[in-house]
Amino acid sequence: MIDVAADRLSAAESYRLLVGIVVPRPIAWVTTRQADGRINLAPFSCYTFVSSDPPMVAISIGRRDGVSKDTAENARRTGEFVVNIVAEDQVEPMHLSSAAHPSDASEPDLLGIALAPSLRVETPRVAAAPVALECRLADILPFGRLKTELVIGEVVMFRIADALYRDGKVDTVAMRPLARLGGPHYARLGEILTMPVVGEPGPGAPAPFPSRSTVRSR
Amino acid sequence: MIDVAADRLSAAESYRLLVGIVVPRPIAWVTTRQADGRINLAPFSCYTFVSSDPPMVAISIGRRDGVSKDTAENARRTGEFVVNIVAEDQVEPMHLSSAAHPSDASEPDLLGIALAPSLRVETPRVAAAPVALECRLADILPFGRLKTELVIGEVVMFRIADALYRDGKVDTVAMRPLARLGGPHYARLGEILTMPVVGEPGPGAPAPFPSRSTVRSR
Repeated sequence: MIDVAADRLSAAESYRLLVGIVVPRPIAWVTTRQADGRINLAPFSCYTFVSSDPPMVAISIGRRDGVSKDTAENARRTGEFVVNIVAEDQVEPMHLSSAAHPSDASEPDLLGIALAPSLRVETPRVAAAPVALECRLADILPFGRLKTELVIGEVVMFRIADALYRDGKVDTVAMRPLARLGGPHYARLGEILTMPVVGEPGPGAPAPFPSRSTVRSR
Repeated sequence: MIDVAADRLSAAESYRLLVGIVVPRPIAWVTTRQADGRINLAPFSCYTFVSSDPPMVAISIGRRDGVSKDTAENARRTGEFVVNIVAEDQVEPMHLSSAAHPSDASEPDLLGIALAPSLRVETPRVAAAPVALECRLADILPFGRLKTELVIGEVVMFRIADALYRDGKVDTVAMRPLARLGGPHYARLGEILTMPVVGEPGPGAPAPFPSRSTVRSR
């Protein structure tokens, strides 16, 4: 093993390691409203969900030269944001929207990305996104010496393309989500492995685990 | 679009939607020490990094019947844990270690998973894991009505298989990480898309974005 002590690394060096290790990452393509009413759009991949009652998502947003990025600042000011899911066919506009730009620029305008109205928040969604999560800001928590901002939102409305919604679930494979890796690299989903459900062992169950021979990918 | 208002959903219904939408998720296969010194091992996929100075990871861990899961409880008591990265060839033991079991059971013992000592924490890593992150507990934050626990750890040591470490980076594709989807479904990495770097537009730059025609996956 190569052993790298974290206290010998700069922030940039730690970041270079983490982006290659914490993978693959889902992508939150986030719309927010600027002070002038125009719409900001940027992708973030340090993102997960942190509660199901109510549903809540958390998006880690680094600062730029110590200043909050537009997405975090807009969420703070307006109290809302929309997470758009990025399907494979949106990789190009999504990637281009990650470029740094003046705060008053609107990526949807610059890149010709169509928006559509939301239902419970004033911030629109990306029209082509297969799923969008309308969120009200719950909190912004700073982490570490750079005060990286963890933006927490309560999902108030799920917007799901008709073809993807079945029996209260989203068909992930049909959604064709894009994953983020390190550097300018993304990945499509590869082979799907489906494992047997391993549940709670009942009282008197002979063994807490199924035998290994019962586990097969299919 | 199918529009689903979150305030009409139970926690279980929201969870069923979120696990299919926030995808693909990286997997933290976490070792912790029990009170009796034996080692607990369980996978969690609501996980990301939240700081690079110092490097910090966050793992969302739901409660079971209102009680902290063993991983969160052990991290709280010992002040440490180890995140093991799951490569494709570990899908079977990783999945089996997700089963509920008595608190005094040790998944490595039950499943025959070899452990190896850590350098800066007393909790061992999974010997077969291509990368392990030795972590000291920084905080545990509750979210939502179920008080889902976000376990925050500071990475104090990166352990990286020799073949994966190059120029201060980890070769993600060679690491062959496994992703979590909804249900008992996992995914391998599929096709990798590499996009041109879009940087900070310099002063006097003609346009804040490269033209779309310069963007090609390769």
